[in-house]
Amino acid sequence: MKQKTLESGMLYDGSQINPMWAFQALGIKGSSIVTWIGPMNIHSDELIDYEDVGLEIKSDEMVHFIIEHFDIQPADMRLCYHRQRILVMIVKDLLEELGIKTLRKGDDIYLDGGKLSVSIATCSISSMKIHFAMNLTSQGTPDDVKTTGLTECKAHLTHEDVTKLAKNISERYVMEISDIEQDISKTRVF
Amino acid sequence: MKQKTLESGMLYDGSQINPMWAFQALGIKGSSIVTWIGPMNIHSDELIDYEDVGLEIKSDEMVHFIIEHFDIQPADMRLCYHRQRILVMIVKDLLEELGIKTLRKGDDIYLDGGKLSVSIATCSISSMKIHFAMNLTSQGTPDDVKTTGLTECKAHLTHEDVTKLAKNISERYVMEISDIEQDISKTRVF
Amino acid sequence: MKQKTLESGMLYDGSQINPMWAFQALGIKGSSIVTWIGPMNIHSDELIDYEDVGLEIKSDEMVHFIIEHFDIQPADMRLCYHRQRILVMIVKDLLEELGIKTLRKGDDIYLDGGKLSVSIATCSISSMKIHFAMNLTSQGTPDDVKTTGLTECKAHLTHEDVTKLAKNISERYVMEISDIEQDISKTRVF
Amino acid sequence: MKQKTLESGMLYDGSQINPMWAFQALGIKGSSIVTWIGPMNIHSDELIDYEDVGLEIKSDEMVHFIIEHFDIQPADMRLCYHRQRILVMIVKDLLEELGIKTLRKGDDIYLDGGKLSVSIATCSISSMKIHFAMNLTSQGTPDDVKTTGLTECKAHLTHEDVTKLAKNISERYVMEISDIEQDISKTRVF
Amino acid sequence: MKQKTLESGMLYDGSQINPMWAFQALGIKGSSIVTWIGPMNIHSDELIDYEDVGLEIKSDEMVHFIIEHFDIQPADMRLCYHRQRILVMIVKDLLEELGIKTLRKGDDIYLDGGKLSVSIATCSISSMKIHFAMNLTSQGTPDDVKTTGLTECKAHLTHEDVTKLAKNISERYVMEISDIEQDISKTRVF
Amino acid sequence: MKQKTLESGMLYDGSQINPMWAFQALGIKGSSIVTWIGPMNIHSDELIDYEDVGLEIKSDEMVHFIIEHFDIQPADMRLCYHRQRILVMIVKDLLEELGIKTLRKGDDIYLDGGKLSVSIATCSISSMKIHFAMNLTSQGTPDDVKTTGLTECKAHLTHEDVTKLAKNISERYVMEISDIEQDISKTRVF
Repeated sequence: MKQKTLESGMLYDGSQINPMWAFQALGIKGSSIVTWIGPMNIHSDELIDYEDVGLEIKSDEMVHFIIEHFDIQPADMRLCYHRQRILVMIVKDLLEELGIKTLRKGDDIYLDGGKLSVSIATCSISSMKIHFAMNLTSQGTPDDVKTTGLTECKAHLTHEDVTKLAKNISERYVMEISDIEQDISKTRVF
Repeated sequence: MKQKTLESGMLYDGSQINPMWAFQALGIKGSSIVTWIGPMNIHSDELIDYEDVGLEIKSDEMVHFIIEHFDIQPADMRLCYHRQRILVMIVKDLLEELGIKTLRKGDDIYLDGGKLSVSIATCSISSMKIHFAMNLTSQGTPDDVKTTGLTECKAHLTHEDVTKLAKNISERYVMEISDIEQDISKTRVF
Repeated sequence: MKQKTLESGMLYDGSQINPMWAFQALGIKGSSIVTWIGPMNIHSDELIDYEDVGLEIKSDEMVHFIIEHFDIQPADMRLCYHRQRILVMIVKDLLEELGIKTLRKGDDIYLDGGKLSVSIATCSISSMKIHFAMNLTSQGTPDDVKTTGLTECKAHLTHEDVTKLAKNISERYVMEISDIEQDISKTRVF
Repeated sequence: MKQKTLESGMLYDGSQINPMWAFQALGIKGSSIVTWIGPMNIHSDELIDYEDVGLEIKSDEMVHFIIEHFDIQPADMRLCYHRQRILVMIVKDLLEELGIKTLRKGDDIYLDGGKLSVSIATCSISSMKIHFAMNLTSQGTPDDVKTTGLTECKAHLTHEDVTKLAKNISERYVMEISDIEQDISKTRVF
Repeated sequence: MKQKTLESGMLYDGSQINPMWAFQALGIKGSSIVTWIGPMNIHSDELIDYEDVGLEIKSDEMVHFIIEHFDIQPADMRLCYHRQRILVMIVKDLLEELGIKTLRKGDDIYLDGGKLSVSIATCSISSMKIHFAMNLTSQGTPDDVKTTGLTECKAHLTHEDVTKLAKNISERYVMEISDIEQDISKTRVF
Repeated sequence: MKQKTLESGMLYDGSQINPMWAFQALGIKGSSIVTWIGPMNIHSDELIDYEDVGLEIKSDEMVHFIIEHFDIQPADMRLCYHRQRILVMIVKDLLEELGIKTLRKGDDIYLDGGKLSVSIATCSISSMKIHFAMNLTSQGTPDDVKTTGLTECKAHLTHEDVTKLAKNISERYVMEISDIEQDISKTRVF
């Protein structure tokens, strides 16, 4: 599973959740996790979560993760959402290690009573995709939702901190998935 | 998914990891999570983890969780290990909420430098099983491994605390799995 | 699995077979069976059955069933058609209980030598859909096919009878699927 | 899918539900449905239904069906039970056509208030098995269950009638499964 | 699995890789392998291989194979590519039997240092598709790739030879897949 | 996928086809291909091929391949036999490159009219296993089957040649499977 950090600035407009985006846009072949810092503003026709229809999904600056898995054929939304949960729980753990106590509800992370993150998972028949992102700032987020950002909380993370955090999250996630594969091959079954 | 707490005292000897144990021993039909406090001493012919062959797997008192899932047909070791990881991460979170800081490596939880937990997952073609247990005390655990127990750490959990914790873990786990199912049904796919 | 009866009158134009229709149009999350009485006139671009290309698929009044299952991931056309057959056989049984003797061929039901029903199944990667409908009247059905309706046969069902029948069918179907799940969890496997 | 009728007399002792029985005992390779008339007396160690543990499962004369499917890899208990239900519903239909009105509950058929049939489904990772049998007589059935037989009811079926019925059931079942496969290949998916 | 040879001349423009093409264009229901001799010029919006984006995929005369499998539900890209490889290896073997020594790399066949073949596999949720084609001549192939054709090599195959070869390939492929199914049903599993 | 060549001499008695053999006997975790030169004499209770029941399966010296795949969960006999065929076809190709012309029928290879190879595939729910072996000599093979060996044919391969061939086969096989995975991740699906 390949890991890649992009230069800051790319807008997350929802198109990156499309299957094969990493191959078509970045030339990355096979399973991958790509991270970058950039704004978010999702085109309504790129919406994946039907509960978000009609809502604004935007933020001035977030740290983004786009994951694509090709290991399961055919792709499986159930497994994909299990992996999303594992990712979110890893994020919560690593924030905790930085002294940032958060609250998780499903795939949402809350910090100081504000929504810190957005996430969705989806798939085509041949790949599973996950998008996860955390606000660096609450600026540019929808008015009707209380939000918070990693650079605004008590820990006052810098961009450098966030970049490092993103790498740690990616590494831990890749390791966890690989670890699971190892566990399968040492287990007696019935 | 049914939840059940058994009276304290039953030995975990490894037979409870067998598919259909909850139905055969307790009359529970369908997916379930069963918890109880009791000792552990695994018969060598009930070993599931081939890395444990030749090792003693025992403890005088643990809080046990036995999970069985029938929702995936045929059963899938990969999904089963994903669920095990989610369970372990929920445990870590709930310990944290009790002020008990732990370290997770794969499916193991460490507390104050000692091994707190054991876990395994397995399956037959029609069901997926998970066993997870935490020491209440380090007594009766193998000599060659540093262990620790929930009643011995700074938080000094009582049996009542542990019983309550076990219920919380079960509830949170059942909710998480159910939540994932809900998420599938609101997601646009490609 | 949720059951819902809609007010009479909604046209079945084929759009209701789209995955997630129940969620998007009715706010129903998760697996569901929705029934209503209304006309049918399928837009040619909503056709699912390639054998129907170029045919008129219409009727002035039918009792409709739209089923969506999210329990199997990824969705499986084979299982979906097995469920469709089970639905159609339940319908035949319940008509029989009302004294209406019919003939089943695959997913079609015939009454007094006329075609009583239409049905199709399809899926996206995350859900399985079934449409099944029976004519209340032969009015408005294609000229080149002999059809018959539930209010026209000897039993002369009223709208109230049909509504009650639809509820019975839904309940029996939901119970059957749930029953199958129960059976899995009491079965020894090899 | 091969169909075979055996000579009358073979005891159904539960061993015939084992995967590959048709190949090992009869040399039949691939999916098959085998029928014969004979007694039943299931060895306790051949029990598949955990709810039957401790019960006598026997009858002096029944018409038996043993089905094995290799088309789904890996085998799937859920699909297997769907097929079992379809089989049972076909049986009910064909009895009806002979003027024998029965009642179905799950995989059981009742006639004149007595239990007419037994059935179970199971699988190994490579094949799905179904056993279904109907009493010809209530003789030799357990004392604590009211049973009935095809030769005892008003229709008074003869052995020849039953043999013919068994062939019809087999043919209808094979046709139904094949029909479903045909339907898949004419269906537009999303 | 049905085999069909079409009259020569039909352009392969990429539309034939669409699921259900054989049914919609030729009325063939179920799994099939269709062969014909004709030119190739793939519309850019029919491209399946993302590595081919921007490239010309064309040739004046090729022998084409279009395969569709409905036996696996849901369809599986991994199995589909395994079947593609088996097809390509059968082709190599049959060319060898005609005295034409070739080199295979993945799904490409090379002859006398020139590229002889093109191939792709894809799927929808209900069917798996494979296209494989060999140049009869290098005329009309892209300028930037060295190609070769079956009628140009030392063996100088005639159109009749190629038609016969195509039939042999189809037969051998159908036999191989059927053979695999047979093998499953004689194998003990764990 | 790990490759390992063992020292010559180990008897293939059928136990090596058991799931997890590579881990339990050799400490190899995860998917692997293991090769060695040694005799074969299969215990009748280790037979996997039900067609071999009652037959002697033995040879004084063969080159063996034992493959285990954990990548597909749950394991799939169909895919497993596809991989077996790919392996056998790779063997045939590499023999050809050494000037040894053979004939393949299903999973058997014939040389100079004698049977050169044996092969079987099987699986548990968590892994897929393949055994393939070629005679080095026809000594010690069953009397009722004409066999041939790699050291006896015109090419007169030495032990060193065979060891090198085994490595090439392993490498080519591992590369082929990995290549297929790559192809999936560049393919547009429907």
